[in-house]
Amino acid sequence: MPTLHKPAIYLPEHIITLEETLDLAKKNFKDNPNLEKSIELITNTGVKKRHIIQPIELATLHPGFGYRNAVFEYQSKRLVPNVIEEALSHADITAKDVSAIIYVSCSGFLMPSLTAWLVNKMGFPLQTVQIPIAQLGCAAGGSAINRAHDFILAHPGSNVLIVSCEFCSLSYQPTDGDIGSLLSDGLFGDAITAAVVTSRAGNGLELQRNSSYLIPNTDEWIRYAVKDTGFHFRLDKRVPGTMAPLAPVMAELASTHHWQIDSLDYYIIHAGGPRILDDLCKYLGVQREKFSYSRDTLVNCGNIASSVVFEAYRRMHEDSIFKSDQRGIIAGFGPGIIAEMNLSQWRSAEISRLTA
Amino acid sequence: MPTLHKPAIYLPEHIITLEETLDLAKKNFKDNPNLEKSIELITNTGVKKRHIIQPIELATLHPGFGYRNAVFEYQSKRLVPNVIEEALSHADITAKDVSAIIYVSCSGFLMPSLTAWLVNKMGFPLQTVQIPIAQLGCAAGGSAINRAHDFILAHPGSNVLIVSCEFCSLSYQPTDGDIGSLLSDGLFGDAITAAVVTSRAGNGLELQRNSSYLIPNTDEWIRYAVKDTGFHFRLDKRVPGTMAPLAPVMAELASTHHWQIDSLDYYIIHAGGPRILDDLCKYLGVQREKFSYSRDTLVNCGNIASSVVFEAYRRMHEDSIFKSDQRGIIAGFGPGIIAEMNLSQWRSAEISRLTA
Repeated sequence: MPTLHKPAIYLPEHIITLEETLDLAKKNFKDNPNLEKSIELITNTGVKKRHIIQPIELATLHPGFGYRNAVFEYQSKRLVPNVIEEALSHADITAKDVSAIIYVSCSGFLMPSLTAWLVNKMGFPLQTVQIPIAQLGCAAGGSAINRAHDFILAHPGSNVLIVSCEFCSLSYQPTDGDIGSLLSDGLFGDAITAAVVTSRAGNGLELQRNSSYLIPNTDEWIRYAVKDTGFHFRLDKRVPGTMAPLAPVMAELASTHHWQIDSLDYYIIHAGGPRILDDLCKYLGVQREKFSYSRDTLVNCGNIASSVVFEAYRRMHEDSIFKSDQRGIIAGFGPGIIAEMNLSQWRSAEISRLTA
Repeated sequence: MPTLHKPAIYLPEHIITLEETLDLAKKNFKDNPNLEKSIELITNTGVKKRHIIQPIELATLHPGFGYRNAVFEYQSKRLVPNVIEEALSHADITAKDVSAIIYVSCSGFLMPSLTAWLVNKMGFPLQTVQIPIAQLGCAAGGSAINRAHDFILAHPGSNVLIVSCEFCSLSYQPTDGDIGSLLSDGLFGDAITAAVVTSRAGNGLELQRNSSYLIPNTDEWIRYAVKDTGFHFRLDKRVPGTMAPLAPVMAELASTHHWQIDSLDYYIIHAGGPRILDDLCKYLGVQREKFSYSRDTLVNCGNIASSVVFEAYRRMHEDSIFKSDQRGIIAGFGPGIIAEMNLSQWRSAEISRLTA
């Protein structure tokens, strides 16, 4: 069965705290009628700090879509290889053992995807299947896990590398002053994560059943408006209410697998914002502390888009409190609005040695 | 075994002939030192006409990246559903039977991908898996077939819809006067294609073995330079020479399947340009007329990017000269530089009725 190994993460060196975020909002949008409400919403996110790829003095300027994309390419090439190396080492494989790379990122656009450069740079086999996904936003993390799961079902014995490179700060738009934009300015962070899915048992999550779901008629609720100035993130105020229709979908998936959604041992949930996590706890009938890995990710990194599920799972992996066979779910949410879900069981290293 | 059914195609109503292309080049680039060489190269493509999504008077203007992307979204929503309906009918299924949509397009950028809108608009199941791919360029057609093939191996009994929406004319950049740009201005065309891969036998290609390959250190040869003015297509003069290293890769794939690459019954090859087709014939040891479906696509549509393989296969399907068990290869090429290849056997309707 496919195993999702421990992810690696890189958080950029430039840090912006909640206090700095609020000060900036007050300075840059001081005459904006949405400021007061936005300050309240940002404070309520619970995000204490975020890491961003440029110092804040540069991140808040807009040098043009072309320049920003050049920053995206330069920083990706500079930083992604080390994260990949660490993810490969967590799975105890090398670049030569990789059959496919699923590369997800929604904050810049390269064609070819960075995957081609990575194959040349890092010595992946020339036969490596490249699956770049740019249009699933925050849901791309869950999607990448599910597509890696599928790839291994289709090609038993293969290993899939997942890379999530999210530089959300490159979509900051200084002229956007609506509440959704101001909230997003205070919510999203930058990160690179990577993780390997192998075909063999190992110290990690054994992926067992995946599923996708779209909430009807919400395709306008989370989206990019594409303008001459690049990607303008648009967030509808109805988004935080989407956990009500998604909870029964997650419950049904668990039920199909003969599990109960409210009695799983772990929950790796996309930390889109605090209400997403609070509501989902409530609707699933799960205690608040069961979502601690996702909540800690949100507090320390902000919403790092498709990287959230990997960073939350990394925290769980390091916690080392799980025993083999314990059960859980990964759920990524994002534009569509879609959910990408995967049911898994924790397998500890002892088991992997026995079955290796 | 997965069956690739007959594709549907839409070609926009606005047509530009070779003569009109040459006249426009002479008018718009009359003082350009690359004009003479470009006229020669465009004439040699053999492209007689191309279909474009806007009248040429508008297509040659640049109203900004944002406006162009709005055209991309508007025209996609207007035109894609009908092409999908036709593709579904060719496979004798309805939207309700679709398990996954692979949507490929490199000439605009939407987030969420059009897939979310399509699920709502056309009644695909809310559980439909969405796989949007924007960064594989012309190779995305072959990639979509291979990923659909893999999806069915992972989920037996499922059906995958592939949609390729290529409005290459929306990347026309009036200020780019290098030879690669001038040649591209005279080579690329617009098209929408769609095709279904089902899990059951049918009247079409039974997909049997897929493979990917990257030609080392060519990731800069076909690419987008992303600027404030959008996507600027960059084509290196070494690209037409890439069939020499790819031919042995295709031969080895056939050999692994106990087939001989020079004695297949059909070849569905990406018609990137005339030399791609001529060289590959030569290096594979195949007669020129074996590539007629690809060549006819190039002559009548230009290079329609990821749609080429579907349009060439549609021509083959309509030709009705094949008998069950005849063997062939699909090969898409594009930025990376990568090849996405699939070995298949033709199955005629008689067989499908017997095994249904």
